[in-house]
Amino acid sequence: MGMAGESQNWVLMVTAQTPTNIAVIKYWGKRDESLILPVNDSISVTLDPDHLCTTTTVAVSSSFQQDRMWLNGKEIPLSGGRYQNCLREIRNRASDVEDKKQGIRITKEDWGKLHLHIASYNNFPTAAGLASSAAGFACLVFALAKLMNVKEDESKLSAIARQGSGSACRSLYGGFVKWKMGREEDGNDSLAVQLVNEEHWDDLFIIIAVVSSRQKETSSTTGMRESVQTSLLLQHRAKEVVPKRILQMEEAIRNRDFASFAQLTCADSNQFHAVCLDTSPPIFYMNDTSHRIISIIEKWNRSEETPQVAYTFDAGPNAVLIARNRKTAASLIQRLLYYFPPNTDDLSSYIIGDKSILQDAGLEGIKDVEALLPPPEIKDNIPSQKYNGDVSYFICTRPGRGPVLLSDEGQALLNPVTGLPK
Amino acid sequence: MGMAGESQNWVLMVTAQTPTNIAVIKYWGKRDESLILPVNDSISVTLDPDHLCTTTTVAVSSSFQQDRMWLNGKEIPLSGGRYQNCLREIRNRASDVEDKKQGIRITKEDWGKLHLHIASYNNFPTAAGLASSAAGFACLVFALAKLMNVKEDESKLSAIARQGSGSACRSLYGGFVKWKMGREEDGNDSLAVQLVNEEHWDDLFIIIAVVSSRQKETSSTTGMRESVQTSLLLQHRAKEVVPKRILQMEEAIRNRDFASFAQLTCADSNQFHAVCLDTSPPIFYMNDTSHRIISIIEKWNRSEETPQVAYTFDAGPNAVLIARNRKTAASLIQRLLYYFPPNTDDLSSYIIGDKSILQDAGLEGIKDVEALLPPPEIKDNIPSQKYNGDVSYFICTRPGRGPVLLSDEGQALLNPVTGLPK
Repeated sequence: MGMAGESQNWVLMVTAQTPTNIAVIKYWGKRDESLILPVNDSISVTLDPDHLCTTTTVAVSSSFQQDRMWLNGKEIPLSGGRYQNCLREIRNRASDVEDKKQGIRITKEDWGKLHLHIASYNNFPTAAGLASSAAGFACLVFALAKLMNVKEDESKLSAIARQGSGSACRSLYGGFVKWKMGREEDGNDSLAVQLVNEEHWDDLFIIIAVVSSRQKETSSTTGMRESVQTSLLLQHRAKEVVPKRILQMEEAIRNRDFASFAQLTCADSNQFHAVCLDTSPPIFYMNDTSHRIISIIEKWNRSEETPQVAYTFDAGPNAVLIARNRKTAASLIQRLLYYFPPNTDDLSSYIIGDKSILQDAGLEGIKDVEALLPPPEIKDNIPSQKYNGDVSYFICTRPGRGPVLLSDEGQALLNPVTGLPK
Repeated sequence: MGMAGESQNWVLMVTAQTPTNIAVIKYWGKRDESLILPVNDSISVTLDPDHLCTTTTVAVSSSFQQDRMWLNGKEIPLSGGRYQNCLREIRNRASDVEDKKQGIRITKEDWGKLHLHIASYNNFPTAAGLASSAAGFACLVFALAKLMNVKEDESKLSAIARQGSGSACRSLYGGFVKWKMGREEDGNDSLAVQLVNEEHWDDLFIIIAVVSSRQKETSSTTGMRESVQTSLLLQHRAKEVVPKRILQMEEAIRNRDFASFAQLTCADSNQFHAVCLDTSPPIFYMNDTSHRIISIIEKWNRSEETPQVAYTFDAGPNAVLIARNRKTAASLIQRLLYYFPPNTDDLSSYIIGDKSILQDAGLEGIKDVEALLPPPEIKDNIPSQKYNGDVSYFICTRPGRGPVLLSDEGQALLNPVTGLPK
């Protein structure tokens, strides 16, 4: 080996932070299961990693006996094809690395023989159905690429992350991102490109309603396979509907045209769920609470001259609500708390993320929530029903940046000496 | 006038009973709003009028001052276009009528000048979302045709009933019925034909779960208009999917092929609801309880070699469950009562219609319901959740006959002397 170290105990590590993303034109259906090639393009908005992100530390050492990984502190097997595909593709692109301070030199050829330790942590509940695998695989691939001195750009890296989890490819960039489905059989042109960065449209504010659910949900992998096999509407959507919507959405984003953006986002979310329902057996990701949130937004949007809020739902009941600006977001949180007040007095654990929106909305405490009046678009005098307990909590956030390296060793998840989780 | 009566007080009346029907290939979307011409063919099963039907008495007298109608004992306006269309079309086809007993003679021409009294009664809750307008308009047209000696057959009458409520045209026959969408601009070829009568497939047993709902539902008239205007999947369904399904469904019915029948029925119900979801704003007719019933049936069907039960949902959360035979229906009611036990001890108001299925299922009283074991297809040992109160009641029935005249004057809803509701 070309590695030179004072002892066998050197550890070289890199820590990265990668955002999650939410599709506004949905990915649903693969044309190639193993390469994860989709049946249509999709577009997403990257969420601020301050509130929703994955942090991953990857380490290499000649003392490591095997590839190992820890997710949220718990060791998990790396034997799955998705991890193996990402590791293989990154290793194939590795370059020489030299760390003069530690006196380490690793050649391109060494990478195939060295083992890796990987530790990953989500700053949000994994079970909440918030695309943790998207941020996770993006972060894994981004961190490994930095560690191994892979020279390819984010777009090329996105095609590797795609092989871990399709939507992961869209987490390699901030702002608005398009996953081009590509045409090539090997999938090399199925990758993400940035449409605009996070500064282009920084008025937007996002509130995620994490909805309580008693149902066990169909995994998106299984769900989209069954949709491809059984839905008679999916191919029509993929071939006839989505290509036009992609063009319209790109234009709406370019022009910061919120009315078009909201119309397309809501329609595409609903159509994705329509295809799920057209699957045999049918897949229900939205529940009565999801429906109720849609009705609240639709009624409000229709009462205004132009849409105020867009909604979109992934493979679960959680609502992602995109408000046209902070002022609208303050009105939105008032409406949400009016219908879905917390079950306890503790507002600060019920509204997480960018809590400053509560001040904007004049909601300092539970008393202010209890004093909320019905929204003006409710015209009938029947007091509206309240749905305490139907939402677990709300996350307040905004569009955000792409992956970054964390150079502060204090943020690493692995011990720099042992290479094991801290 | 050519009418001869001893006095002005003669009343001539006819009473008819007409079933409701449930589509197994759905009607959703009009190509002509005023003539009520659909965008695709549909197929329905007629439900036994012993459990779900409309009874209508129509009366004529030279003493009546205007056309009047009473629905479930309450007078309602007849000014609506749908009633006016049906009355006009029937009057246009009226023939001479002679009642020798009463000494009445009404010529073809007289009918345009005589006024009618109409009383109609549903033997099931109008608000339950069980297609009361289908049975209602079919019964109105059928009874008027008999009163006015209209010589046209049921199929021609169905084209008139269609102008009252689209699905009403399918209630002119028993058994399985196809509504041919037709091609002509005037709608004369948009009418119902009987595929098979109710004796062809008399194994089938039907259980309707009337589901409790807190939502106010979109009317089907408004809903289908919005779907036609905004769903990008509706036309594909109407043009590409339904025509093939109609042929397959006709064959399944002809061959009493329950596996194909169930697969088509469930898939088409789900696709209709998918189109509703693809509408802007989206329409949700099914709720969490509807979804739960589907999951119970899907899991059971998949655990057996061949489907046991088909489900279908109209413009509301109620489930119509079609069991392959009585034995399966007994197993079905066990499962339904296991998950959805009554809120009270009174089983006899919770299971209505053909209650004899309870004996088949060994369920004599609430104690037997409480003793029900989880169905064998539930393999995990987690005790299943119960959903008391989520179903209002169950109606047990079967495929049934078409419209009949009730000759017993005791069953008339109007007083034979006054022509007013009894």
